[in-house]
Amino acid sequence: MNFLELVNKRRSVRSYDLTRPVEPEKVERCIEAVRLAPSACNAQPWKLVVVNDPELKNKVAEAATTKWLGQNLFVKQAPLLVVLVRESPNITSKLGTVLKDKPYTIIDVGIATAHFCLQATEEGLGTCIIGWFNEPAVKKLLGIPKAKRAELIIAIGYPAKPDARKKIRKPVGEIRSFNKY
Amino acid sequence: MNFLELVNKRRSVRSYDLTRPVEPEKVERCIEAVRLAPSACNAQPWKLVVVNDPELKNKVAEAATTKWLGQNLFVKQAPLLVVLVRESPNITSKLGTVLKDKPYTIIDVGIATAHFCLQATEEGLGTCIIGWFNEPAVKKLLGIPKAKRAELIIAIGYPAKPDARKKIRKPVGEIRSFNKY
Repeated sequence: MNFLELVNKRRSVRSYDLTRPVEPEKVERCIEAVRLAPSACNAQPWKLVVVNDPELKNKVAEAATTKWLGQNLFVKQAPLLVVLVRESPNITSKLGTVLKDKPYTIIDVGIATAHFCLQATEEGLGTCIIGWFNEPAVKKLLGIPKAKRAELIIAIGYPAKPDARKKIRKPVGEIRSFNKY
Repeated sequence: MNFLELVNKRRSVRSYDLTRPVEPEKVERCIEAVRLAPSACNAQPWKLVVVNDPELKNKVAEAATTKWLGQNLFVKQAPLLVVLVRESPNITSKLGTVLKDKPYTIIDVGIATAHFCLQATEEGLGTCIIGWFNEPAVKKLLGIPKAKRAELIIAIGYPAKPDARKKIRKPVGEIRSFNKY
């Protein structure tokens, strides 16, 4: 599978095979893909908390669900959740953030997330990146220090069914130009 | 090449082959990898300005160079620069940003950047992600509206030489834990 095929195959999976656990070595390879990711000034400002304890996983899933909106109800189905914590920048990255008004560590978290989800796709796993959740509750459940940000939760599991939806995206002419915005 | 091999192969390249131009179709495939990337609420909040006009490219490169610091002097060598502009979120993404204090579009820019650089690696190209540059000057050169942010410049070209450096990264035990931060 070449990289564009991998990119095309990656989907936001919201329905998981409840009978099929995720092999730990597959998750370790996803983490390895994050570990090798680039970051501003090589700060590597990320920590991943793998939530594989079923009871705790369900509590974290509940903190990612807004029941009255029917939002993210699928998260509880996922056999595994990974919480991506944004760490402090190193001194050079911090200097850039201050002087250039560029939150490099947030960009870095995005890069790490892409690496994780693409490796998961290569492993045959489905993922869903969740950015809307009760962050204080998740931090409390996992003992994440108050000063840190739990930026994203990644739900992981085998997809319940193949997904042949066509990706809905802007045409290239809307996102690319030459020499002028 | 599997995905972990690709991740391992990707380097920040700061020395380019001056005799070898970049084929336009390779850049188009890098943009396609961005186009298919995931984003919060599928907002796709990115625009890529490909700077391939040699004179303009050199001016943008100069805006990315801090001469008295000797910083980023290599950028002028790169035959091609791509400026990644962060676009406004759609309404649902914006709502999340406000209610959850999560700058989703910045995370999305990180995801897009990873997709671009990994496809470039697959094409045999080298890249360097530049976050430190004179943003007002770059915006003026490319006609980027004042309200938008030019988040990153990606330098692209064929590497001048093979790079066998080992990646310097934190050990996995420092970036991954189970069920507890």
